[in-house]
Amino acid sequence: MYSVAVIGATGVVGQQFLVALDRHPWFKVDCLAASPRSAGKPYIEALRGPEGEVRWFCDEPIPESFIDMEVKDSSTIDPSDFDIIFTAVESDVALKIEPVYAKETAVVSTASAFRYEEDVPILVPGINDNHVKLIELQKKRRGWNGFITPIPNCTTTGLVVTLKPLLDEFGLDKVIMTSMQALSGAGRSPGVLALDIIDNIIPYIRGEEWKVEVESRKILGSLINDKIKPADFKISCTCTRVFVKDGHTEVVYASLRRKASIEEVKEVFTRFGESVFRNKDLPSAPERFIICFDDPFRPQPRLDRDLYGGMAVAVGRIREDPALENGVKYVLLSHNTRLGAAKGAILVAELLVREGVV
Amino acid sequence: MYSVAVIGATGVVGQQFLVALDRHPWFKVDCLAASPRSAGKPYIEALRGPEGEVRWFCDEPIPESFIDMEVKDSSTIDPSDFDIIFTAVESDVALKIEPVYAKETAVVSTASAFRYEEDVPILVPGINDNHVKLIELQKKRRGWNGFITPIPNCTTTGLVVTLKPLLDEFGLDKVIMTSMQALSGAGRSPGVLALDIIDNIIPYIRGEEWKVEVESRKILGSLINDKIKPADFKISCTCTRVFVKDGHTEVVYASLRRKASIEEVKEVFTRFGESVFRNKDLPSAPERFIICFDDPFRPQPRLDRDLYGGMAVAVGRIREDPALENGVKYVLLSHNTRLGAAKGAILVAELLVREGVV
Amino acid sequence: MYSVAVIGATGVVGQQFLVALDRHPWFKVDCLAASPRSAGKPYIEALRGPEGEVRWFCDEPIPESFIDMEVKDSSTIDPSDFDIIFTAVESDVALKIEPVYAKETAVVSTASAFRYEEDVPILVPGINDNHVKLIELQKKRRGWNGFITPIPNCTTTGLVVTLKPLLDEFGLDKVIMTSMQALSGAGRSPGVLALDIIDNIIPYIRGEEWKVEVESRKILGSLINDKIKPADFKISCTCTRVFVKDGHTEVVYASLRRKASIEEVKEVFTRFGESVFRNKDLPSAPERFIICFDDPFRPQPRLDRDLYGGMAVAVGRIREDPALENGVKYVLLSHNTRLGAAKGAILVAELLVREGVV
Amino acid sequence: MYSVAVIGATGVVGQQFLVALDRHPWFKVDCLAASPRSAGKPYIEALRGPEGEVRWFCDEPIPESFIDMEVKDSSTIDPSDFDIIFTAVESDVALKIEPVYAKETAVVSTASAFRYEEDVPILVPGINDNHVKLIELQKKRRGWNGFITPIPNCTTTGLVVTLKPLLDEFGLDKVIMTSMQALSGAGRSPGVLALDIIDNIIPYIRGEEWKVEVESRKILGSLINDKIKPADFKISCTCTRVFVKDGHTEVVYASLRRKASIEEVKEVFTRFGESVFRNKDLPSAPERFIICFDDPFRPQPRLDRDLYGGMAVAVGRIREDPALENGVKYVLLSHNTRLGAAKGAILVAELLVREGVV
Repeated sequence: MYSVAVIGATGVVGQQFLVALDRHPWFKVDCLAASPRSAGKPYIEALRGPEGEVRWFCDEPIPESFIDMEVKDSSTIDPSDFDIIFTAVESDVALKIEPVYAKETAVVSTASAFRYEEDVPILVPGINDNHVKLIELQKKRRGWNGFITPIPNCTTTGLVVTLKPLLDEFGLDKVIMTSMQALSGAGRSPGVLALDIIDNIIPYIRGEEWKVEVESRKILGSLINDKIKPADFKISCTCTRVFVKDGHTEVVYASLRRKASIEEVKEVFTRFGESVFRNKDLPSAPERFIICFDDPFRPQPRLDRDLYGGMAVAVGRIREDPALENGVKYVLLSHNTRLGAAKGAILVAELLVREGVV
Repeated sequence: MYSVAVIGATGVVGQQFLVALDRHPWFKVDCLAASPRSAGKPYIEALRGPEGEVRWFCDEPIPESFIDMEVKDSSTIDPSDFDIIFTAVESDVALKIEPVYAKETAVVSTASAFRYEEDVPILVPGINDNHVKLIELQKKRRGWNGFITPIPNCTTTGLVVTLKPLLDEFGLDKVIMTSMQALSGAGRSPGVLALDIIDNIIPYIRGEEWKVEVESRKILGSLINDKIKPADFKISCTCTRVFVKDGHTEVVYASLRRKASIEEVKEVFTRFGESVFRNKDLPSAPERFIICFDDPFRPQPRLDRDLYGGMAVAVGRIREDPALENGVKYVLLSHNTRLGAAKGAILVAELLVREGVV
Repeated sequence: MYSVAVIGATGVVGQQFLVALDRHPWFKVDCLAASPRSAGKPYIEALRGPEGEVRWFCDEPIPESFIDMEVKDSSTIDPSDFDIIFTAVESDVALKIEPVYAKETAVVSTASAFRYEEDVPILVPGINDNHVKLIELQKKRRGWNGFITPIPNCTTTGLVVTLKPLLDEFGLDKVIMTSMQALSGAGRSPGVLALDIIDNIIPYIRGEEWKVEVESRKILGSLINDKIKPADFKISCTCTRVFVKDGHTEVVYASLRRKASIEEVKEVFTRFGESVFRNKDLPSAPERFIICFDDPFRPQPRLDRDLYGGMAVAVGRIREDPALENGVKYVLLSHNTRLGAAKGAILVAELLVREGVV
Repeated sequence: MYSVAVIGATGVVGQQFLVALDRHPWFKVDCLAASPRSAGKPYIEALRGPEGEVRWFCDEPIPESFIDMEVKDSSTIDPSDFDIIFTAVESDVALKIEPVYAKETAVVSTASAFRYEEDVPILVPGINDNHVKLIELQKKRRGWNGFITPIPNCTTTGLVVTLKPLLDEFGLDKVIMTSMQALSGAGRSPGVLALDIIDNIIPYIRGEEWKVEVESRKILGSLINDKIKPADFKISCTCTRVFVKDGHTEVVYASLRRKASIEEVKEVFTRFGESVFRNKDLPSAPERFIICFDDPFRPQPRLDRDLYGGMAVAVGRIREDPALENGVKYVLLSHNTRLGAAKGAILVAELLVREGVV
C-alpha cells in the first residue's frame, strides 16, 4: 500500500477525495490536512458549522475510518512521510505549498497553479500517458525529489477524452466548443448564489475558456525532446453556467483533417472507449471511457453523469456538421467532480504508480 | 383602425396576442376565436379549468376589454370581416385553416405550416422588408384575395437580427450556433415536465435545428425574379433546452468574409440596432433592435430579456474567434414569447400596413 | 417463489415496481401488463417514444430480465395465474380492473379507487398490521377468492409512520400538517409543467388534503368487530407542490394527550423506528423505519430521501410547540416513490405473505 | 421635501431603497453612504466587481440621479443633515451606527438590532400606527433628539397584516405558521448557494422562528402606560427555505376566540384590506393591503408577489380548520423585498411624517 495525504481535506474536493480513497486497493490515507483553523481536531469536528451541523457535501456518507482522524496543519506536515500527496486547495495556496511538498514527494494537484509551466505535464490517463516522461525533467530542473502533476480544468477533461480518438484517427483542424457547466464546478467559496442562477444562465466563467483552450492543446500535444509541442488544431470556447448540480455538458463542433462518416466517428469513439483501459489494471479506470448514445435526447446530466461511477464521458447527437470542412458535431457530458476532480486525480496517481514514477 | 381577429385566443400565444394588442394604436380586436369547445363562451369562461381557476398564463392581467367578449368558433368565422387575422395555433391546424382565411384576407401566423413554401416570405421587420414583395406573387399564384405571412421559429429571430448587420457589412461564410432555450418555447401541450428538466439539460429539440438553419438562410436571402435565393453562408446549429422561463440564449460563432475587429463588430451591431427602425413609425418596434453589453456577465435571460419590451436582441461577449477564418463569436439573447412570437407577429402586421399590402 | 404480475408496467410507477421486484427473494414477475396499445410488444419496445428513445424514468437501469419480456393486455390476463397482482394504474382504470382481478387473487394497489371502502384496509406494514384481518371480511362480503389492499396516498405514509409511536405512547389530540411535495408525486400525465413551478410554489393539490386527513385516521384506527373505527384525533392539512424531484417534506404540529419532553419524543421515535421490523423478516423493510436528526438543517429532501433505500422516514427539528396543548412539532421527509409507492406496495405484499393471507 | 440618507446604499437592500425612493414625492435622497471601501467613489463605480461588471441586483435599472452621486463613509456623515436616515446594514453594524444617528435624527432601520428593546416600536403602517407614541418615550429615556424605528423581519410582515383583522374582529387564541421563504430573504452574503437548494428544501432558518413569534405578538400588542403589552395569543412557527426568488409563502392555521364562517373571514380580510389606507395619503401604501383569492391555486409567488407594487398581501385557500377550535386556515404571500424591506421601511417613514414625529 502507498501512503497518501489529502491536503484541503475539509473542503468539498477534499471530501470527494476521501470518498474515492476509502477502501482504495493501493492507497492508504495516512494524513488529512487543512488550514490551521482545523488542525488538531478530529475530522468530523473540523467539519462542524455554527449550529453544530456537519458540513459534509458528498452524496455518500463520511467514510467511517476518517470520522475521528485528527486533522493536521497543512503547512507543518512532513511531505517525506507520504508516497503521494493529493492537494485540493485554491490556486494561490497551491502556489505556495505544492513546491514545498514536491521537494520531497509526488504531488497530484487539482489546482491550476502549475498547469501552464513548461516542465509540468497535465496528465489524463488514457489520453497522454507518455507525458509522464516530462516528470523526470521537472525533477532534474527544479532539483526536487518529488514533482507536481496537476489534473486539467474539469471542463477540459471531457473534451480531450473525445478529441483524442478523433485526432488520432482523422486528424483535427478546428474545434469549437460551447459548455453548459454545472454548479458544483464553481465550488462553494463563493460558489454560485441561487439568486443569480434561478431562471437564468450566466454566460461567462472567469478564466475558463482560456484554460480549456490552452490545456486541450497541451494535453493532446506531442512530447518532443523533453518539450510538449501543443497539438496544432485551432480551438474556440464559450463557457456558461446553468442550473445543473453536477455534470458539464459540452456542445462540440470539430473540423477533421479527413472526411469521416458518422458511423466511422461512432465506431472510433466506441472502440477507443472500450479499449483504452483494457489490461491497464488501474483501479479507478472505467470499463468504458466513452459511451455513445443513439437516442437523440441523450446524454442528459441528471441521467447520465454517474455512468461507470462518473468516470466515463457520455457522447450523443453525433451528426455531420454542415458548416465546417469534414465537420462533425456532438454533445458530450462528463462528471466534473468525479472524472473532472478527485477521482480523476486518483486515476492519475494510479497511472504514476503503474509507470513507476511513484 | 384595422379590424383584426385572433385565432387560438385561449392558448398561451393567443393570450400573448391579446396583451400585445390591447390599446394598440392601429389594430382593433373584433374577434377572439378558438376551438368549438370554447365557442359561445365569454372569454374568461373559456379559460376556466376544472376547479374554476382561470388558466391565464401571461404576467400581465387579462385586458379588461376581452374579459367578457364572446369566443367564436375558428372554423366558422367569416375572414372577410377582418383586415388581418393573427393565428396562434398548432401547425396541423394552421395547415387547414390558414388557406381558408387567406382566400379573403391577410393572415399573420406563428405556425410553421407555410414557412417553407416558395411563395411565402418569412418576414422579420428591419431584416428583410423587401421580401414583402413576394406576397403579390403568392396571391396571384394561389388566386387568393389575401395571403399568409408566417413569422420565423422563435430561435431563428434573434439569430437573423444579429447576422443581418454582419452579412451586410462584412459578408458571412459560416455560422455555428448553440442555443440554450427557454421552457416557454415548448408551449404547454405537452410542454416540458418539471421532472424532466430539474437538475438537467435536454440536448435535443425535435425539428428545431433544421428550422433555424433553413429559415435563417431564407430570411437573409435575396429576392431575385420573384424567388428567394437563400443567403449562401453555411450554418450548423445545436439546440438545447434549459431551466429558464423565457428568453433564448444563443452562442454564435461566425466566420466573416472579411476581417473585422471587435470594435468594428460592436459598432456595426450598435449602429444597425439604433437606426433600423428610426423614422419607420412601427408602433411595436423597439427603439434599439440590438443592445451590446461590455460586461462579460451579460446578457443573462432573467436580467435582460425584457429590455425594450422584449423586442430587442441583447448581445454580449463579443470576441475574436481563434478557430474560424475572420472569426467573431458572441452570445445573444432574445425573448422567445415577445419578439419571437405574438409581439413579433404584430410588428410584421405593422410592416404590412406600412408597405401598403394590408 | 410467488408468481406476480405488474399492471401498468410501462408507466412510471410500474417501472419502479420492476426495479424493486428485480431479484426479489420471494416474488417472481411472470407478467408485465399494460394497455392494448403496448400489448404484444417486447417491454423495451413498448417504452419507445416517437424518436425511438426509450421512455424509462427510473434512476436505475431497466432490469435485464424484463427488457425483452412480452407485454400483455391488462384486460385479458387471467388473474388466477398469479399469487399477487400489483396495480400501478390511474384510479378510474383501477375501479374497473381491480375487482376483476380480486375475484381470483390478491391485488396490491397504488390507486385510491378502493381506499375508502369499509371492508378495505389501507395497510402500512409496521403501523396497522392487524388490519389484515379485514381481508377475510372483504372476501366473504364480496364473494371473492382474492381481495384488494391499496396502499395510502404517498403523503399519508410518512405522516402515519411518525404519528403511530406518538399515538401509542402519548395519545394524540390534534395534528396540523403542511406538506411541501415533490414533483414526482404528480406523475407524468399530465404532471407538473416546468413553466408552472419555476420560481414558484403551487399551494394546492386537488383532493390531496382530504385523502391525507381521512386515510391517516383510518390507518391509525382500531379494528373492532370487523370494522375500522378511525383514530379519534383531529387533523388538518395543507398540501403544496415545490420544486423538488423526489421526497415529500411535511411540517407537523401535534397536540398530545399527555405532556412529553422533546427527549421522550426523540427516544420514542428512535425506539419505534429501530424495533418495528426487527425479527419480522420482511425483505423490503428498512433496518430503521424512523431516523431522527439533531442537526437542525435536516432532513433535506436531496440529502436524506434515499436513506435505507428510500424506505425510512427521516425526522428532524423536533421541538416543543408553544401553541398547542402538550404540543410537539417536527419536520419529516419520506420518499414518495419508494416507501410511498412501488416499494411500499411490495412491503405490503410481503406482510400479506407473512400473515398467511397470500 | 424631506432630506434623507441611505446607509448601506451599495448592498441589495440599499439598492432597493434607491429604486423605491427615486422620484418619491416627499423624500429627497441627499446622501448615499456605505463602508469606507466605497467612500469617495461615484455610486456606479462603488458597485463594480472585479471584471468591471456593475453589481446591481434590482430588476429595475439604476435610477439616473444616483449613478454619479458620490458615496460617503457611513461612519463620518453628519446625521443632523438629514430628516430621516434609512439604514440597510447587517445587525452588528446597525448596533453601532444607529444610536449615533438617532442622537440627532429619525432612523428607519431594516436591521433587527433594536427590535426587541422595550422602548422601540416595530411599526407596520395600518397595523399598529398607535405604537408611534412610544417614540416620545424612547427619545426621552435615551436623551436623543432622534430615534430608531426598525421594521419587522420580512416573514413577520405578511403574517401580522392578516392577523390584525382576525384579532380585531374575532379575537385570536392560537396561530400556527409554516413558511416557505424566498431566496432573496437570505440576502447575498453569504446568501443561499444554488448547490444547497437545487432539488431541495432547507428546513431551518437561523433565528427566524423566534423573531416571527416575538415580533408578531409585539406588533399586535397594546400600548398601555407607555409599555407594549404583547398580544396574548399563542404562536408557533416553522420557517423553511425553498427555490423561489422573491415572495414568502406562509401557511397559517388560526384558532379564533369566536366562531367565524369562511365568508365572514373573507369579508373581514377584504374590507380591512380596502379600507386601512383609505384617505391616509401615504404615497407608498397599496390601494388594497389584503387581496383574497377564490381560485384554490392562488396565491403563487411568481404570479402574485408583485400585486400593487409588491405592497399587498395575497391570501387564498381560506378554509375552516377542523383541528383547532374556531379554526380557520389560509395561505398568504407577501413580497419580502418590497413590503418586507425597503418599500416597507419607506412606508413607515411616510407614517412618521403623517404622525408628525418627523
